[in-house]
Amino acid sequence: MEEAKGVVKHVLLAKFKEGISENQIEELTKGYAKLVDLIEPMKSFHWGKDVSTENLHQGFTHIFESTFESMEGVAEYVAHPAHVEFANLFLSQVEKVIVFDYKPTTVRV
Amino acid sequence: MEEAKGVVKHVLLAKFKEGISENQIEELTKGYAKLVDLIEPMKSFHWGKDVSTENLHQGFTHIFESTFESMEGVAEYVAHPAHVEFANLFLSQVEKVIVFDYKPTTVRV
Repeated sequence: MEEAKGVVKHVLLAKFKEGISENQIEELTKGYAKLVDLIEPMKSFHWGKDVSTENLHQGFTHIFESTFESMEGVAEYVAHPAHVEFANLFLSQVEKVIVFDYKPTTVRV
Repeated sequence: MEEAKGVVKHVLLAKFKEGISENQIEELTKGYAKLVDLIEPMKSFHWGKDVSTENLHQGFTHIFESTFESMEGVAEYVAHPAHVEFANLFLSQVEKVIVFDYKPTTVRV
Protein backbone atom coordinates (compact mmCIF):
# COMPACT_ATOMS: atom_id res chain seq x y z
CA MET A 1 0.00 0.00 0.00
CA GLU A 2 1.30 3.42 -0.94
CA GLU A 3 0.56 6.55 1.05
CA ALA A 4 0.64 9.91 -0.74
CA LYS A 5 3.44 11.86 0.92
CA GLY A 6 1.97 14.34 3.31
CA VAL A 7 -1.27 15.14 1.49
CA VAL A 8 -4.25 15.30 3.84
CA LYS A 9 -7.86 15.34 2.63
CA HIS A 10 -10.28 17.21 4.91
CA VAL A 11 -13.84 16.02 4.27
CA LEU A 12 -16.97 17.59 5.73
CA LEU A 13 -20.43 16.08 5.35
CA ALA A 14 -23.41 18.25 6.28
CA LYS A 15 -27.14 18.15 6.67
CA PHE A 16 -28.40 21.70 6.93
CA LYS A 17 -31.13 22.72 9.36
CA GLU A 18 -34.70 22.85 8.13
CA GLY A 19 -35.43 26.34 6.84
CA ILE A 20 -31.91 26.99 5.52
CA SER A 21 -32.50 28.04 1.90
CA GLU A 22 -30.54 27.09 -1.21
CA ASN A 23 -29.32 30.71 -1.34
CA GLN A 24 -27.98 30.50 2.20
CA ILE A 25 -26.23 27.23 1.35
CA GLU A 26 -24.69 28.87 -1.75
CA GLU A 27 -23.43 31.76 0.39
CA LEU A 28 -21.94 29.31 2.90
CA THR A 29 -20.30 27.40 0.05
CA LYS A 30 -18.74 30.60 -1.31
CA GLY A 31 -17.55 31.51 2.19
CA TYR A 32 -15.97 28.06 2.51
CA ALA A 33 -14.29 28.40 -0.90
CA LYS A 34 -12.95 31.84 0.00
CA LEU A 35 -10.89 30.25 2.80
CA VAL A 36 -8.54 28.92 0.09
CA ASP A 37 -7.43 32.50 -0.55
CA LEU A 38 -7.18 33.41 3.13
CA ILE A 39 -5.43 30.39 4.63
CA GLU A 40 -2.15 29.47 2.98
CA PRO A 41 -1.96 25.74 3.82
CA MET A 42 -5.45 25.12 2.33
CA LYS A 43 -4.52 24.14 -1.22
CA SER A 44 -7.81 23.34 -2.94
CA PHE A 45 -11.52 22.99 -2.39
CA HIS A 46 -14.47 21.33 -4.05
CA TRP A 47 -17.97 20.40 -3.00
CA GLY A 48 -21.06 18.54 -4.19
CA LYS A 49 -24.59 17.43 -3.42
CA ASP A 50 -25.54 13.85 -2.76
CA VAL A 51 -26.80 12.10 -5.89
CA SER A 52 -26.54 8.56 -4.53
CA THR A 53 -29.22 5.96 -5.17
CA GLU A 54 -28.29 3.33 -2.56
CA ASN A 55 -30.12 5.22 0.23
CA LEU A 56 -27.16 4.97 2.62
CA HIS A 57 -26.41 8.70 2.81
CA GLN A 58 -28.00 8.91 6.28
CA GLY A 59 -29.63 12.26 5.59
CA PHE A 60 -26.40 14.06 4.66
CA THR A 61 -26.95 16.25 1.58
CA HIS A 62 -23.68 18.14 1.00
CA ILE A 63 -19.98 17.30 0.98
CA PHE A 64 -17.03 19.71 1.06
CA GLU A 65 -13.48 18.51 0.48
CA SER A 66 -10.31 20.52 0.90
CA THR A 67 -6.69 19.43 0.57
CA PHE A 68 -3.67 20.23 2.74
CA GLU A 69 -0.01 19.38 2.44
CA SER A 70 0.30 18.07 5.99
CA MET A 71 -1.48 17.62 9.32
CA GLU A 72 0.42 20.70 10.49
CA GLY A 73 -1.31 22.56 7.67
CA VAL A 74 -4.69 21.32 8.87
CA ALA A 75 -3.86 22.44 12.42
CA GLU A 76 -2.90 25.90 11.13
CA TYR A 77 -6.20 26.04 9.21
CA VAL A 78 -8.30 24.93 12.18
CA ALA A 79 -6.74 27.61 14.40
CA HIS A 80 -6.83 30.40 11.77
CA PRO A 81 -9.16 33.30 12.72
CA ALA A 82 -10.82 33.23 9.26
CA HIS A 83 -11.64 29.56 9.76
CA VAL A 84 -12.82 30.02 13.34
CA GLU A 85 -15.22 32.77 12.27
CA PHE A 86 -16.49 30.77 9.28
CA ALA A 87 -16.83 27.54 11.28
CA ASN A 88 -18.95 29.25 13.94
CA LEU A 89 -21.32 30.52 11.24
CA PHE A 90 -21.36 27.24 9.32
CA LEU A 91 -21.92 25.01 12.35
CA SER A 92 -24.83 27.18 13.51
CA GLN A 93 -26.68 26.26 10.29
CA VAL A 94 -26.23 22.46 10.24
CA GLU A 95 -28.38 19.83 11.87
CA LYS A 96 -25.54 17.33 11.71
CA VAL A 97 -21.99 17.27 10.51
CA ILE A 98 -19.03 14.90 10.12
CA VAL A 99 -15.46 16.11 9.72
CA PHE A 100 -12.97 13.45 8.62
CA ASP A 101 -9.26 13.92 7.82
CA TYR A 102 -7.19 11.27 6.06
CA LYS A 103 -4.04 10.63 4.09
CA PRO A 104 -5.17 8.91 0.86
CA THR A 105 -3.65 5.50 0.27
CA THR A 106 -3.86 3.66 -3.02
CA VAL A 107 -3.89 -0.12 -2.83
CA ARG A 108 -2.29 -2.05 -5.68
CA VAL A 109 -3.66 -5.58 -5.87
CA MET B 1 -19.44 27.38 -10.26
CA GLU B 2 -17.92 24.72 -12.50
CA GLU B 3 -18.98 21.12 -12.45
CA ALA B 4 -16.50 18.51 -13.62
CA LYS B 5 -18.07 16.88 -16.65
CA GLY B 6 -19.56 13.57 -15.68
CA VAL B 7 -17.10 12.58 -12.94
CA VAL B 8 -18.80 11.08 -9.89
CA LYS B 9 -17.06 10.52 -6.57
CA HIS B 10 -18.40 7.60 -4.53
CA VAL B 11 -17.48 8.05 -0.87
CA LEU B 12 -18.01 5.45 1.85
CA LEU B 13 -17.43 6.15 5.54
CA ALA B 14 -17.33 3.17 7.90
CA LYS B 15 -17.12 2.29 11.54
CA PHE B 16 -16.32 -1.40 11.83
CA LYS B 17 -17.98 -3.65 14.40
CA GLU B 18 -16.17 -4.27 17.65
CA GLY B 19 -14.00 -7.35 17.31
CA ILE B 20 -13.16 -6.79 13.63
CA SER B 21 -9.35 -6.93 13.56
CA GLU B 22 -6.91 -4.75 11.64
CA ASN B 23 -6.13 -7.80 9.49
CA GLN B 24 -9.78 -8.25 8.61
CA ILE B 25 -10.03 -4.55 7.71
CA GLU B 26 -6.95 -4.89 5.51
CA GLU B 27 -8.51 -7.86 3.73
CA LEU B 28 -11.73 -5.92 3.19
CA THR B 29 -9.74 -2.96 1.85
CA LYS B 30 -7.93 -5.23 -0.62
CA GLY B 31 -11.25 -6.73 -1.66
CA TYR B 32 -12.62 -3.23 -2.23
CA ALA B 33 -9.56 -2.23 -4.26
CA LYS B 34 -9.84 -5.38 -6.37
CA LEU B 35 -13.22 -4.18 -7.67
CA VAL B 36 -11.33 -1.64 -9.81
CA ASP B 37 -10.04 -4.56 -11.90
CA LEU B 38 -13.39 -6.33 -12.02
CA ILE B 39 -15.84 -3.51 -12.73
CA GLU B 40 -15.01 -1.43 -15.81
CA PRO B 41 -16.71 1.87 -14.88
CA MET B 42 -14.86 2.03 -11.52
CA LYS B 43 -11.85 4.12 -12.51
CA SER B 44 -9.84 4.57 -9.31
CA PHE B 45 -9.85 3.87 -5.59
CA HIS B 46 -8.17 5.18 -2.48
CA TRP B 47 -8.82 4.96 1.22
CA GLY B 48 -7.61 6.28 4.55
CA LYS B 49 -8.02 6.26 8.31
CA ASP B 50 -9.35 9.22 10.25
CA VAL B 51 -6.56 11.40 11.61
CA SER B 52 -8.73 14.41 12.47
CA THR B 53 -8.28 16.38 15.66
CA GLU B 54 -11.55 18.36 15.72
CA ASN B 55 -13.49 15.42 17.21
CA LEU B 56 -16.31 15.71 14.70
CA HIS B 57 -15.74 12.34 13.00
CA GLN B 58 -18.78 10.84 14.80
CA GLY B 59 -17.05 7.52 15.41
CA PHE B 60 -16.26 6.82 11.74
CA THR B 61 -12.73 5.47 11.37
CA HIS B 62 -12.25 4.64 7.68
CA ILE B 63 -13.04 6.29 4.36
CA PHE B 64 -13.03 4.72 0.90
CA GLU B 65 -13.33 6.82 -2.23
CA SER B 66 -13.80 5.59 -5.78
CA THR B 67 -14.31 7.55 -8.99
CA PHE B 68 -16.69 6.92 -11.88
CA GLU B 69 -17.21 8.66 -15.21
CA SER B 70 -20.97 8.99 -14.79
CA MET B 71 -23.97 8.09 -12.63
CA GLU B 72 -24.68 5.34 -15.17
CA GLY B 73 -21.25 3.97 -14.28
CA VAL B 74 -22.15 4.00 -10.58
CA ALA B 75 -25.42 2.20 -11.35
CA GLU B 76 -23.53 -0.45 -13.33
CA TYR B 77 -21.11 -0.84 -10.39
CA VAL B 78 -23.89 -1.10 -7.79
CA ALA B 79 -25.63 -3.84 -9.78
CA HIS B 80 -22.45 -5.75 -10.72
CA PRO B 81 -22.30 -9.26 -9.16
CA ALA B 82 -18.72 -8.66 -7.88
CA HIS B 83 -19.93 -5.54 -6.06
CA VAL B 84 -23.06 -7.22 -4.70
CA GLU B 85 -20.99 -10.07 -3.27
CA PHE B 86 -18.39 -7.71 -1.79
CA ALA B 87 -21.00 -5.29 -0.41
CA ASN B 88 -22.81 -8.10 1.42
CA LEU B 89 -19.54 -9.13 3.08
CA PHE B 90 -18.46 -5.55 3.82
CA LEU B 91 -21.79 -4.42 5.24
CA SER B 92 -21.92 -7.44 7.57
CA GLN B 93 -18.75 -6.13 9.27
CA VAL B 94 -19.67 -2.49 9.85
CA GLU B 95 -21.50 -0.98 12.78
CA LYS B 96 -22.40 2.07 10.74
CA VAL B 97 -21.85 3.28 7.21
CA ILE B 98 -22.51 6.29 4.98
CA VAL B 99 -22.42 6.13 1.20
CA PHE B 100 -22.41 9.47 -0.58
CA ASP B 101 -22.12 10.13 -4.34
CA TYR B 102 -21.39 13.56 -5.79
CA LYS B 103 -20.18 15.44 -8.83
CA PRO B 104 -17.31 17.64 -7.61
CA THR B 105 -17.80 21.35 -8.21
CA THR B 106 -15.04 23.91 -7.84
CA VAL B 107 -16.09 27.40 -6.76
CA ARG B 108 -14.07 30.33 -8.07
CA VAL B 109 -14.50 33.35 -5.83
